[in-house]
Amino acid sequence: VTAPITLLTDFGTADGYVGEMKGVIATLAPSSPIIDVTHDIPPQAIDSARLAVARYWRRYPEGTVHLAVVDPGVGASRQALAVESDGRFLVGPDNGVLSPALLIPGARAVSLPIPPGAAPTFHGRDVFAPAAAALATGSALDDLGPPVEDPVILRTPRPRHLGDGGTEGEVVAIDRFGNAITNLPGLTDGSIMVGGMNLPMAATYSEVERLQPVALVGSSGLIEIAVRDGSAADELKLAVGSRIVFNPTRQE
Amino acid sequence: VTAPITLLTDFGTADGYVGEMKGVIATLAPSSPIIDVTHDIPPQAIDSARLAVARYWRRYPEGTVHLAVVDPGVGASRQALAVESDGRFLVGPDNGVLSPALLIPGARAVSLPIPPGAAPTFHGRDVFAPAAAALATGSALDDLGPPVEDPVILRTPRPRHLGDGGTEGEVVAIDRFGNAITNLPGLTDGSIMVGGMNLPMAATYSEVERLQPVALVGSSGLIEIAVRDGSAADELKLAVGSRIVFNPTRQE
Amino acid sequence: VTAPITLLTDFGTADGYVGEMKGVIATLAPSSPIIDVTHDIPPQAIDSARLAVARYWRRYPEGTVHLAVVDPGVGASRQALAVESDGRFLVGPDNGVLSPALLIPGARAVSLPIPPGAAPTFHGRDVFAPAAAALATGSALDDLGPPVEDPVILRTPRPRHLGDGGTEGEVVAIDRFGNAITNLPGLTDGSIMVGGMNLPMAATYSEVERLQPVALVGSSGLIEIAVRDGSAADELKLAVGSRIVFNPTRQE
Repeated sequence: VTAPITLLTDFGTADGYVGEMKGVIATLAPSSPIIDVTHDIPPQAIDSARLAVARYWRRYPEGTVHLAVVDPGVGASRQALAVESDGRFLVGPDNGVLSPALLIPGARAVSLPIPPGAAPTFHGRDVFAPAAAALATGSALDDLGPPVEDPVILRTPRPRHLGDGGTEGEVVAIDRFGNAITNLPGLTDGSIMVGGMNLPMAATYSEVERLQPVALVGSSGLIEIAVRDGSAADELKLAVGSRIVFNPTRQE
Repeated sequence: VTAPITLLTDFGTADGYVGEMKGVIATLAPSSPIIDVTHDIPPQAIDSARLAVARYWRRYPEGTVHLAVVDPGVGASRQALAVESDGRFLVGPDNGVLSPALLIPGARAVSLPIPPGAAPTFHGRDVFAPAAAALATGSALDDLGPPVEDPVILRTPRPRHLGDGGTEGEVVAIDRFGNAITNLPGLTDGSIMVGGMNLPMAATYSEVERLQPVALVGSSGLIEIAVRDGSAADELKLAVGSRIVFNPTRQE
Repeated sequence: VTAPITLLTDFGTADGYVGEMKGVIATLAPSSPIIDVTHDIPPQAIDSARLAVARYWRRYPEGTVHLAVVDPGVGASRQALAVESDGRFLVGPDNGVLSPALLIPGARAVSLPIPPGAAPTFHGRDVFAPAAAALATGSALDDLGPPVEDPVILRTPRPRHLGDGGTEGEVVAIDRFGNAITNLPGLTDGSIMVGGMNLPMAATYSEVERLQPVALVGSSGLIEIAVRDGSAADELKLAVGSRIVFNPTRQE
């Protein structure tokens, strides 16, 4: 089996753009399985794409090529990147979407040339899909372009230690279920202050009654605020950027 | 070719959870084609998932593994199942989503152990995807866990025979086109009473004029109410649970 | 690797219909990769499907089979087609969705027989999926049915030359980003009149400020109206059918 190529875009599927990209890949890397991650990133939402990439890119076997194209600056001066990190490859615009892989020690990036015939509005088809196919079929990273020393790297905001032992964080994403994912790692026992409420940490949703709020450690190791069988975002009026505070259990 | 693995979830795709599950499968069963059925089941809609599974699970070749994860009880006491039925395998929570396969004579179910490191909120990634990969790569059902004798089974409500020869049923699903799928098998000639109207049975939509209602036998053998080039749900104010009556043609 | 089969429908995925079709293909053509183009064509939007097919069908390698099912006339008298054009195959209803391939010189079409057991409401599963699998596994077009001499062909409206040297065209599609794709080929320098504004042609979005309108040659070679980091459809109140005029740069 050849290396799979995964796809993440904000293109939706109905217009046929994704169909075009897949055709380029099917032509240039016919043995590579094409795996859709998503085409439903909100239009131009670089940060949503970055957080999704962070979740999945290292779950795939070595050699996998991840294409991630959310690209409001297409056709302008931003570079087009190919990245090798921890044995996987990634291609996408130099706007931060590939940050999770670039932050790993040993990550390397190269700048993809834009061929003369490339559509200035669709590098996904004319630059990134061919680069993904080249990497999946055995091209070395350095064959694709010159090194880039300072790619754009976006980081999730860090939590802030408060004087009283607490830690202030924020909501960094709302998922489809209305769960609010925060930037607080869920390492110690304690409770969460959010919107004037104090929520004990639980192991899973079912420790509270239906429609009650709960804080727990989510599947990526970060604290999440949820409402059982409901939407925390709606019920607690949480959005990306909402502040929360973690207070560790006091050792009496 | 190795056995394919199909995926049905209520996760949407934008958050990257499906991308994580596919990464686990691509790592553990790299030769298995991954086939998306849907990730658009409404959040926590077990019954919608069950009805979709009923449609497709036996259309695939023997050996296929169907992963179906709509799992409001994740992390609580509900069991995690793997099922073998009619030569196919299914994995998912013990909440009724796998009922269509469990109802077949000879179906067998086992309980999947939850590994210590599994995220309590994401068994799709940490329990069901590994089990699907194991089955697709040749593990026997009984190697995965101990037998389950009484899995949760949900059934579509049965129609009720009326004294006058008619049969009362109900709408069990509304599809994307607004067609109302009922629980009435479409075996005999007759007509449908719905919302005070009497609709003759037709063979296909085009037997009526545009925007006119029609009753016909749908692609799963059940009676459907449709509006040609329109939405029966909207035009006739039908929803899941709406009552309908089938009256057979009288033999004069 | 066997020929891939691509899928375009207006079925959505949640109801399980697409899952059924894929099961038929996985059974009859188990070695063919199944590639989703889209299932999000608006219900019964033949023209949206036709424009998407036009984008992608020739991007795939020879031998690829494209299934395109947007089929308001299913079960009525419209024919079911299989088409061979430029080395690719297409299957779908005879209602215009396959026009982009039928317009190519040398294209041939045959009429697929409807088997007695086919559901009158679901030829995607019972007619088109089996035909796609047959073509992907080596059947010749002529083995599938008798020739069709006059398949339905829909065309994008042609631009109209104005007396003053300008060309009047119209918006033929709005994409997910709100870009308005027109029927005007983008061959010469000039400017675009739309809604009382005169937009110079640009090479890419970034030549204008944020939220400013811009006209450029899109990725399929046609003029598009966009708003940088915004929606041209919303900001300029453009819809399919909106009139625009291209005026070439005068050679002074």
